[in-house]
Amino acid sequence: MTPWLLAYLGGADAEEGQREALCALGNGYLATRGAAPESRADGVHYPGTYVAGVYNHLRDTVDGHEVDHESLVNLPNWLPLTVRIGDGPWLGAEAMRVLDHRQELDLRRGLLSRWLRARDPEGRVIRVAQRRFVHMELAHLAGLETTVVAENFSGPLTVRSGIDGGITNCGVARYRHLDGHHLIGHETDDPASDVLRLAVETRHSHIRVATAARTGCWCDGRPLDPPRRLVRSPRAIAQEFTVELDRGAELRIEKIAAVHTSRDPATSEPGFEVLSWLGDAGGFEALLDRHVLAWQHLWNRFDFHVEANDTVLRIIRLHLFHLLQTISPHTVDLDAGVPARGLHGEAYRGHVFWDELFVFPIISFRLPELARALLRYRRRRLPQARRAARAAGYQGAMYPWQSGSDGREESPPLHLNPLSQRWVADATYRQRHIGLAVAHNIWQYYQASGDREFLAEDGAEMILDIARFFASLTDHDTAGDRYHIRGVVGPDEFHTGYPRRDTSGIDDNAYTNVMATWLLLRARDVLDLLPPQRRQELCESLRIDDAELRRWEHISRRMTVPFHGDGIISQFEGYADLAELDWDGYRARYGNIQRLDRILEAEGDSVDRYQASKQADVLMLFYLLSADELGALLARLGYRMPRDTIPKTIEYYLARTSHGSTLSAVVHAWVLARAHRPRALEFLVDALESDVADIQGGTTAEGVHLAAMAGTVDLLQRCFTGLETTGDTLRLNPHWPRQLGPLEFAIRYQQHPLTLRVTGRTVTASTGVGGHAPLRIACGGETATLQPNETVTFSLPE
Amino acid sequence: MTPWLLAYLGGADAEEGQREALCALGNGYLATRGAAPESRADGVHYPGTYVAGVYNHLRDTVDGHEVDHESLVNLPNWLPLTVRIGDGPWLGAEAMRVLDHRQELDLRRGLLSRWLRARDPEGRVIRVAQRRFVHMELAHLAGLETTVVAENFSGPLTVRSGIDGGITNCGVARYRHLDGHHLIGHETDDPASDVLRLAVETRHSHIRVATAARTGCWCDGRPLDPPRRLVRSPRAIAQEFTVELDRGAELRIEKIAAVHTSRDPATSEPGFEVLSWLGDAGGFEALLDRHVLAWQHLWNRFDFHVEANDTVLRIIRLHLFHLLQTISPHTVDLDAGVPARGLHGEAYRGHVFWDELFVFPIISFRLPELARALLRYRRRRLPQARRAARAAGYQGAMYPWQSGSDGREESPPLHLNPLSQRWVADATYRQRHIGLAVAHNIWQYYQASGDREFLAEDGAEMILDIARFFASLTDHDTAGDRYHIRGVVGPDEFHTGYPRRDTSGIDDNAYTNVMATWLLLRARDVLDLLPPQRRQELCESLRIDDAELRRWEHISRRMTVPFHGDGIISQFEGYADLAELDWDGYRARYGNIQRLDRILEAEGDSVDRYQASKQADVLMLFYLLSADELGALLARLGYRMPRDTIPKTIEYYLARTSHGSTLSAVVHAWVLARAHRPRALEFLVDALESDVADIQGGTTAEGVHLAAMAGTVDLLQRCFTGLETTGDTLRLNPHWPRQLGPLEFAIRYQQHPLTLRVTGRTVTASTGVGGHAPLRIACGGETATLQPNETVTFSLPE
Repeated sequence: MTPWLLAYLGGADAEEGQREALCALGNGYLATRGAAPESRADGVHYPGTYVAGVYNHLRDTVDGHEVDHESLVNLPNWLPLTVRIGDGPWLGAEAMRVLDHRQELDLRRGLLSRWLRARDPEGRVIRVAQRRFVHMELAHLAGLETTVVAENFSGPLTVRSGIDGGITNCGVARYRHLDGHHLIGHETDDPASDVLRLAVETRHSHIRVATAARTGCWCDGRPLDPPRRLVRSPRAIAQEFTVELDRGAELRIEKIAAVHTSRDPATSEPGFEVLSWLGDAGGFEALLDRHVLAWQHLWNRFDFHVEANDTVLRIIRLHLFHLLQTISPHTVDLDAGVPARGLHGEAYRGHVFWDELFVFPIISFRLPELARALLRYRRRRLPQARRAARAAGYQGAMYPWQSGSDGREESPPLHLNPLSQRWVADATYRQRHIGLAVAHNIWQYYQASGDREFLAEDGAEMILDIARFFASLTDHDTAGDRYHIRGVVGPDEFHTGYPRRDTSGIDDNAYTNVMATWLLLRARDVLDLLPPQRRQELCESLRIDDAELRRWEHISRRMTVPFHGDGIISQFEGYADLAELDWDGYRARYGNIQRLDRILEAEGDSVDRYQASKQADVLMLFYLLSADELGALLARLGYRMPRDTIPKTIEYYLARTSHGSTLSAVVHAWVLARAHRPRALEFLVDALESDVADIQGGTTAEGVHLAAMAGTVDLLQRCFTGLETTGDTLRLNPHWPRQLGPLEFAIRYQQHPLTLRVTGRTVTASTGVGGHAPLRIACGGETATLQPNETVTFSLPE
Repeated sequence: MTPWLLAYLGGADAEEGQREALCALGNGYLATRGAAPESRADGVHYPGTYVAGVYNHLRDTVDGHEVDHESLVNLPNWLPLTVRIGDGPWLGAEAMRVLDHRQELDLRRGLLSRWLRARDPEGRVIRVAQRRFVHMELAHLAGLETTVVAENFSGPLTVRSGIDGGITNCGVARYRHLDGHHLIGHETDDPASDVLRLAVETRHSHIRVATAARTGCWCDGRPLDPPRRLVRSPRAIAQEFTVELDRGAELRIEKIAAVHTSRDPATSEPGFEVLSWLGDAGGFEALLDRHVLAWQHLWNRFDFHVEANDTVLRIIRLHLFHLLQTISPHTVDLDAGVPARGLHGEAYRGHVFWDELFVFPIISFRLPELARALLRYRRRRLPQARRAARAAGYQGAMYPWQSGSDGREESPPLHLNPLSQRWVADATYRQRHIGLAVAHNIWQYYQASGDREFLAEDGAEMILDIARFFASLTDHDTAGDRYHIRGVVGPDEFHTGYPRRDTSGIDDNAYTNVMATWLLLRARDVLDLLPPQRRQELCESLRIDDAELRRWEHISRRMTVPFHGDGIISQFEGYADLAELDWDGYRARYGNIQRLDRILEAEGDSVDRYQASKQADVLMLFYLLSADELGALLARLGYRMPRDTIPKTIEYYLARTSHGSTLSAVVHAWVLARAHRPRALEFLVDALESDVADIQGGTTAEGVHLAAMAGTVDLLQRCFTGLETTGDTLRLNPHWPRQLGPLEFAIRYQQHPLTLRVTGRTVTASTGVGGHAPLRIACGGETATLQPNETVTFSLPE
């Protein structure tokens, strides 16, 4: 099996060992790329998966180890297609027994293929092969090709092909008791004999979604035009036609669908647009050719080679595949963010968290236009973030921890603990650090792309207003001349308060405070970088005066960072005073203790009491900042961090983390990459397996973990290569495990095409044609200046 | 009156001489900026003016010379506000006699003020002052402040403030017999005692538009909270409240409105968003402060100074004001193009033509982000343009002459001649040259901004596909080895066919053929400029092979350009054979013969028979290309154009042009600027007066002529300065009339801030901080290389 294919043998012939590959497919994975999630606190849903065209549950591989035959065809499916022999049962009904089933995802071509054989009660057997895609160039189109062979009989075969607007949001088992109906106003018609159309509207946001589907058929290569019978129900429309098949004959059915929403650009009315798109869509094969070419061009930009390890390479490609299914050049024209679970599942209801922090390094180096569009998604929600800050009594812009279409805070106030079945207060909305991530992404994009126009027109205003928010969050202890940020939650969501305090939130979270300091310094840098006229505009419109800048400067020297007595950074003020958990005891008792918070709550205890983290919190600092950068920041604040405390700090928190987030493994691999490579590789393997092996025991079925997926790619791209952007110089510091063979990939750095090939501590960089000035690359103590089409090799001592 | 103010004294005290200033305001001129026009062939309308908030007809100044009192308050008005004394007539009713009326538009602050006095039948007089704005920073908000003084009475005054969804599209008299109702699904409520809300949906496109308005009042500075009475009708909602006024007391009423559509970004549901915006909108004065600041920042980028002539300066500013009301930084996030009549009137139903050709030079040099967004508007309609080409039997992308929301051709097939009252076939959709304008704009933007990323990711694909379309339009006469383009219409819309030919369109329009040649050469340049990987991608996805490139190359050497016998370029093949018109006779008989086509049709004749142009067609070549560029193109095609034929050509067509388009004056001023400056200045004055003096006799009332407005600014910017962008050098060749005093303005050229000061044949250029590399400027034979904050002066011989 090449690193481009994921296959699954199911049904009667299922092979246990290959099952995990399919988990990575999950449900709805071929959803239309880039559809903007709609969300409302009072009833959320996710049109991304609705408009999929090929939304198709494959629950069998997730919920149990038996193939659920019904699910193969008949589970919620926007564009159902099924067949029956004579008056026999429909394929998908229990009586139509599936004899074997196999499917294969071709990542390179973005094509899902499926093969199955089925036998009706009279012993008649059909062989079915299906191929499907959602088009990567013509984003409104999708194609499904089905071939049916009459294996052992002659007689009539009836095809039913339709559009079903009766589907619901039922992809997440835990949410199924909530109302999953989110579509209203169904209208159906058949604008042509071979074309059906359905128009619906989402219940809360009134987004109009239209779908049209054209079904054609060929018998042994010969086009047929059988009479069609319309089958209508209030929420669906289908057509049936019957073809006489001789034994061994092959019926090929093409279903080409067009989907358009009222929020797509260049729209008059979706119901009209779908006919327009369908009107000049070619046949399956011609569409597939262009689809494959579009994917090929994407893979040219996103390809990674890991020479000695097909498994690593295949999973890396799967992760990139999901990333590009979710955001792609098509996203540039949509008002869409990065949903935490991609377009793959319904968990978190499509909400946007901070996942883009992990996604940007992959995108900024390959599709800067897309990165800029994602930052503009945040820019368009700046008024909402300002409103949130003002409403909470702060200044500047307070970005929400969870948000949907209009950028309001959508974090739920309560959370159901499935272990105790108790609703517990959820204070995770206090993760103010999301704004630091937004600012960090702007800065990172600017460094990677060199896009000064974006920085001036959009980025600067966001960075300044987020900086102002964090400055307004601080309070000043005049006695010690120290600034504090109280009542927040850090990236570690276990700690949302103190054991014996009524209000939620913890004080002086080290991650938040250090990154807020970093931000205030970047705000200053940004003001220095702006052309004078723009700086003046911003200072006038934001009313930034010297007094405020002086305050920022002072905070950037006097922010509090809590330390343990032994020089280890405390996760937050008072963390060291918390009880130690009996980790071995809990592991022995519960096995998987990733969700220790739920275990303890169910025991009547609280994780707030313990030195226990869901995910690396202090360690995130080592992920976002180099050791030198962090050391300089702490020194500026008047703290000493001797180099040897870094490994001690890592050890300390590694021993106290339950890995309740898939991001933990990424961050741990990152921070261990230099100090302890074998352990780093273990964490890399964990991170790679997050979704492929569903290491959280069921969460992959609810949607892939996009940030962790991107994070694994970034481990190859930035961590093991030591790639850093500093001013106008690209720095490298390779540390790539030799046993994985050479690693090769390409990036675009400030418009320079650049190929990097890394093995051990040696890196070769080759430029292409594209950048303005010559490219400066540094490694160890050396710096090279490359013209287009030049190559340099650096070797560091092992 | 400073060059920032336009004032109008109306009513009893009207002063004839100041009337023209108000024509420039016309109706709806304070419409919400940047709303995308919605259009459908079967019933077009224009939400831009609906959502205006301050949509307000001022027909009085347009239709007659009497003030139509009713129109002052009560004509279609989305956000009506009126008052009455006791149980007397409402202000706006005939019985409420307006004694005098004056209004003033402050361009600098984007503020319309109005003063009036009115007397009721009982002799009670009120004095009313109003100020209004649509917010330039907080684009969803608008404000109206009304103060009413009880001049000679004491007693109750009742205020009615509402939102009226019953308004129709009735701004264009000629269209009034068409159905002007375009809103359905009216829902009204009063979410708070001082807040009203109306939600509607457009009839065809189902765009949802919500408006909320908050009305507050103060008496002599003291806030009041009078009880409110709700007034409801099926399509409108209002509230009334009554205040007791003492003689001389002043009642101040603030109405703050929020408008949101379902096509705005960052939207959950418009009805929800308007409350959100209104919820933290401050009062009138605070909002006005920020509004004025936003305008100030825009004016900083767009300001022009003409030292010795206030009239020129005021009109230039009015033109920039309308341009920025239509497109502004807010447009960047909308899927909106450049409508021909701005947001000022309903003529052409908000359709997008080629006006952006005249607008881009102003925008690309000041707000490149906006220019890029407008090009992406065209990029998003590339699939539709490809579809149109395919449907017409061509290759590549055929942009439509008139288009609306989804980029389809919206040109009407018939046109009513108001003189003959006959419907005549309209073949102006054959203006294929619109695609040349789109390509030219991309190239112009690239030259001005240096934005290679846009060129690679978007621009190149458009240029290549438009080039391919024009190549496919040609047919090859193998005998003469010449290519022809037949059956098109050039910019001169008078000639849509030959006198005795059944099919429409003319052959070998010189403008189209020369610019198509220019385009094929730019397509080659673009391929050379692209990074190799991107070039390969595009050649693969567009399937461009060497044979096609060789064909383009061949066409670029063998395109036909028709000439008269005396070396003058023929407007099209056969133009010289057409009859000469008796221009003097027609001028004597009809006076204004701008619409000669209608006059002749009404006479049973046809303009097709005559050497008569509506607007400069051949001369457009001298507008878009320098004489050197045009000469080189013709030489490449094997034609000679001796220098001395240029003035002859200009004279020839000047004598045969009726100026039926406002663009003619701009183009004529341009082409005469060097050869015949006094006549150039006459045309400049004509162009400046297009809308201010409504030189087309009534069309300004239907909407300003945005292209002509921008064109006048560009005459100052590029024509009289000789400003050209060639590769990495900015060229200047000043020719500015000394009698107008020094001209000064600022641009951004490839990220360099640059101030130019021109007088006569002397130009001084000063750089600011911002560009990458040093800036190269050439003038005459000299070239200077400027670092930031450097100045250079060039003087050419007079």
